Amino acid sequence: MKKSLGAKTIVYPTPVFVVGSYDTEGRPNIMTASWGGVCCSQPPSLAVSIRKERHSYENIIASGGFTVNVPSVAQVSAADYAGIYSGRDEDKFAALGLTPVRSDLVNAPYIEEFPLILECALRQTVEIGIHTQFIGEILDVKIDPEMLDDDGNPDPAKIRPFAYAPGEGGYWAIGERVGQSFSAGKKQADG
Amino acid sequence: MKKSLGAKTIVYPTPVFVVGSYDTEGRPNIMTASWGGVCCSQPPSLAVSIRKERHSYENIIASGGFTVNVPSVAQVSAADYAGIYSGRDEDKFAALGLTPVRSDLVNAPYIEEFPLILECALRQTVEIGIHTQFIGEILDVKIDPEMLDDDGNPDPAKIRPFAYAPGEGGYWAIGERVGQSFSAGKKQADG
Repeated sequence: MKKSLGAKTIVYPTPVFVVGSYDTEGRPNIMTASWGGVCCSQPPSLAVSIRKERHSYENIIASGGFTVNVPSVAQVSAADYAGIYSGRDEDKFAALGLTPVRSDLVNAPYIEEFPLILECALRQTVEIGIHTQFIGEILDVKIDPEMLDDDGNPDPAKIRPFAYAPGEGGYWAIGERVGQSFSAGKKQADG
Repeated sequence: MKKSLGAKTIVYPTPVFVVGSYDTEGRPNIMTASWGGVCCSQPPSLAVSIRKERHSYENIIASGGFTVNVPSVAQVSAADYAGIYSGRDEDKFAALGLTPVRSDLVNAPYIEEFPLILECALRQTVEIGIHTQFIGEILDVKIDPEMLDDDGNPDPAKIRPFAYAPGEGGYWAIGERVGQSFSAGKKQADG
């Protein structure tokens, strides 16, 4: 018999997206968001939800582009910091000792020190409730070459990304590999 | 210097949502989707993207509701199976030995054996590309009571959810807890 927890945003895992944008005067900013994910395979697209009060909201509406920077566990405190403080009050890149790099595909900066970057062009905004969902087309994925496996794919064991756990509020590292998709569940006869 | 991987849906972590629905004749079905996530805090909402060709697409359009069932690592093969085979061809609940439970909040079944369940009422559909995004309002979260921590919050260490890693295609367990949100990044002066 299951216990009811009520109408809450509790599901696992949720990502930790550090979203990069420029303000209208060209100053780079980052904010952290866990409400989002991939939303389409073709065109490759990603959604991230941002409240209208956030500095990044007006930045992305004005610039039409954003980056998603995936932190490694060594960057937990930087990612958390970027979710607490506002770019209206300070330069978070400077405060965190991070280096903004201008994307040549979208009007947004990415974080040089983070291992995995997505450059996204804003395609749609969707009003849901207190959040507005930004749907971006992924124009490129960039990675530190040492984070690739022998097949040339990004290796989660090297990137060491982490998830956010709504409710108890922890950050949790990605751990062991427990299966292969489109294989673990195949019927014996297909194998 | 980062390496470009091209326009791909590669980001970590992505969730493994096993989506429950009834078809127009009341037969329960499940499918697995990793393109989705929380999309709004108020009303609490979750998005999941589904292609029009999928059996679940027509089910949810007709029923107006769906569940999201979060598997534990012991359920990797069941979750993978539900993403490979179609409910048009077979009863996946029966094939996997899973028990469908009728939600009393939405017109959809959930999986008794899975630890964490979200019951969602369809509020919007968003056309993106080859995927349609279903935005559901989360009406309730249900959990096996033994998966709660001492504070009454869901405990990821007990639920043992896992993530999907696009690109290399693995399933990865949630591992160690590496930080506390709204704390790990606080300035010393605030602490």
